[in-house]
Amino acid sequence: MASSTMEFWYEFASTYSYISVEEIDDKAHSAGVRVEWKPFLLGPVFARQGWRDSPFNLYPAKGAYMWRDLERLCVRKKLAWRRPTTFPRNGLLAARVATAIGDARSSKAFTKAVFRSNFVQDEDISDSAVIARALKRAGLSSDEWLQRAATEETKELLRLRTEEAESRGIFGAPTFVAHGELFWGGDRLDDALDWMTSKP
Amino acid sequence: MASSTMEFWYEFASTYSYISVEEIDDKAHSAGVRVEWKPFLLGPVFARQGWRDSPFNLYPAKGAYMWRDLERLCVRKKLAWRRPTTFPRNGLLAARVATAIGDARSSKAFTKAVFRSNFVQDEDISDSAVIARALKRAGLSSDEWLQRAATEETKELLRLRTEEAESRGIFGAPTFVAHGELFWGGDRLDDALDWMTSKP
Repeated sequence: MASSTMEFWYEFASTYSYISVEEIDDKAHSAGVRVEWKPFLLGPVFARQGWRDSPFNLYPAKGAYMWRDLERLCVRKKLAWRRPTTFPRNGLLAARVATAIGDARSSKAFTKAVFRSNFVQDEDISDSAVIARALKRAGLSSDEWLQRAATEETKELLRLRTEEAESRGIFGAPTFVAHGELFWGGDRLDDALDWMTSKP
Repeated sequence: MASSTMEFWYEFASTYSYISVEEIDDKAHSAGVRVEWKPFLLGPVFARQGWRDSPFNLYPAKGAYMWRDLERLCVRKKLAWRRPTTFPRNGLLAARVATAIGDARSSKAFTKAVFRSNFVQDEDISDSAVIARALKRAGLSSDEWLQRAATEETKELLRLRTEEAESRGIFGAPTFVAHGELFWGGDRLDDALDWMTSKP
């Protein structure tokens, strides 16, 4: 069924998700489109395709291209960027925290802080101290949200979210869902927003 | 080294290459960029990554997305489109013919005719009768070019072209090479043209 909200599915380890996290607010605002941020885990999705690592590591030519492409894109879009010394970093803890916070302004602020930790400060986002700092930068209590992230309820919510991604046919990140249609890849954000506004 | 010509690497079986084949002339002309058309074979490149079939067949969610995306893109770009009943079709003969003709206006006309056979008329482009018709539509002698396509010289040229693609880091089609930089995917054609004109 059509919805007036576009869904933004992202994974904390994903390089191209970083670009979308940085630019989606401005672009969606200009287009007059509401966005729901949906963190999920790409690991289980990849595992079911037989991949035990990022395709960017499994296929070196694709990986080499991606790193150069990210560098170029960030220059063009005037985004800070440093190639992380470890890739992919484990985004499980960050995804649980974001899931616990839910779809709120503070969750976006937390998400942006984590992406900058990973792709600008080259910090290990699986480290709870790094996540605690990201929570503080978002104006949130680190003790409270690290605790809530560890509850069974949060874990189950994230599992269900990831299963939902798969059942919707999502196979990579970022993916935008506009009126039920998938648009895969950061370079398809404009297309997804066009789909929202031209097919109401 | 910088070159004033952008390279357009494509594979006859590739759905996203079809869109680029249809739109690259107009876009490059508007940008004032010369384009060299470089047919190559994706099969050997995929085989070296361990794939014995198209990733769109190996990964069903990615395949389902691609078919829907192609349909949407062709509507938006006002291109004729029919999902082929066989995918991928073997583009070896077509690639040999295009290689034999070389980088000429008639080669482009032949290439466009073959892509329409595959993705509009749903014809088997590995069939020499289909290729003969495409040659005729391009105003070329089918006997002459089918013969030249079968020479050792042409076969070797195409092998070398495909090896060149791999050594350049090309891992998919279409790929545009602008001043030595790769841009992968039909949706990056505008970026590649920008790179040609903004970084002379």
